[in-house]
Amino acid sequence: MTRLEKQMAFLEEVDKIKLIGRQNYLADGSRKENDAEHSWHLALMTLLLSEYANEEIDVLKTMSMVLIHDIVEIDAGDTYAYDYEGQKTQHEREEAAADRIFNILPEDQANKLRALWDEFESGETPEARFAAAVDRVQPAMLNSSSGGISWREHGVTYSNIVRRNGKTQLGSQALWDYAKEHFIDANVENGLLIDDRRKEEK
Amino acid sequence: MTRLEKQMAFLEEVDKIKLIGRQNYLADGSRKENDAEHSWHLALMTLLLSEYANEEIDVLKTMSMVLIHDIVEIDAGDTYAYDYEGQKTQHEREEAAADRIFNILPEDQANKLRALWDEFESGETPEARFAAAVDRVQPAMLNSSSGGISWREHGVTYSNIVRRNGKTQLGSQALWDYAKEHFIDANVENGLLIDDRRKEEK
Repeated sequence: MTRLEKQMAFLEEVDKIKLIGRQNYLADGSRKENDAEHSWHLALMTLLLSEYANEEIDVLKTMSMVLIHDIVEIDAGDTYAYDYEGQKTQHEREEAAADRIFNILPEDQANKLRALWDEFESGETPEARFAAAVDRVQPAMLNSSSGGISWREHGVTYSNIVRRNGKTQLGSQALWDYAKEHFIDANVENGLLIDDRRKEEK
Repeated sequence: MTRLEKQMAFLEEVDKIKLIGRQNYLADGSRKENDAEHSWHLALMTLLLSEYANEEIDVLKTMSMVLIHDIVEIDAGDTYAYDYEGQKTQHEREEAAADRIFNILPEDQANKLRALWDEFESGETPEARFAAAVDRVQPAMLNSSSGGISWREHGVTYSNIVRRNGKTQLGSQALWDYAKEHFIDANVENGLLIDDRRKEEK
């Protein structure tokens, strides 16, 4: 296969990400979101919100990272944030998926995308920390807009979501403060999120 | 509203792009694609195929352009490539949409995104020409993969698609050559695309 044939084969293969469903709903609550839509939203958030990163980030690198961060789910499926059983095998399933899918590309681009995905997974650079932050803030925003449907479907509590979103703070204190006030605390107050705060947190 | 409140209001508003349907199907033919999925795909194509641009392009700028190029369709709707009636009012409808939607953002970002969209529409820079090229190659790829369903639904012929894809050449001769061979000529040969070639083209 020529270089361009390999690139096109990859671009056709990853079309499948549009069929990988997530647990959160769109803002209007009409249906659940898929991975392609989610990744598009994160790339746009990166473009518009990079000024809130705790450390300066390379915007192109971070956008590239969020565009490809869920491609492994084509084989490994979406593991819900609060599915603690599924999370036990998540890493192994996703590594195998990365080995297969990124290697459809010519070697240099396969290595580049794999390195980006590994960096995202490790969460140890400013770009990976910011990507993880928007990856958490975006579904919190949609869950809040859609009236907490997916929180109710899964019995998600205040503590669950605060724990899950802890990493947001590492990438962006400002986005965490915003999300906590508007998407978490506000929804405990109005009853959309189960209130299991300890007395001292109230 | 604070700066971040405006940015978040925009990011919530543009969630609606996930509900704007296109005419082409996903690669597997299971359903039609929406604008968010299409935009995600174009951003990834830009990342992986920029080496084929006729002129050197700024990848971040081009990715940003394709991520936002269809946002106006939230108000204006998707105008099908072969809907010649709809195209008469398309420009006016899309200008009004751009005025409303981009202005939800803080002024500096509203201006930045509006300028990117205007640049895409004008098609007069290397980035806009490359964006236009991938915007045509991507649905041609999916139409080919899905067995030409949407071509048949709309009675699209060889001449229609060659004329529509003419602009691809301006952004990338290499992608045009590939698309013509694999997605157009091959589908005339196998009968998925109506053959209205003049004798001298055969």
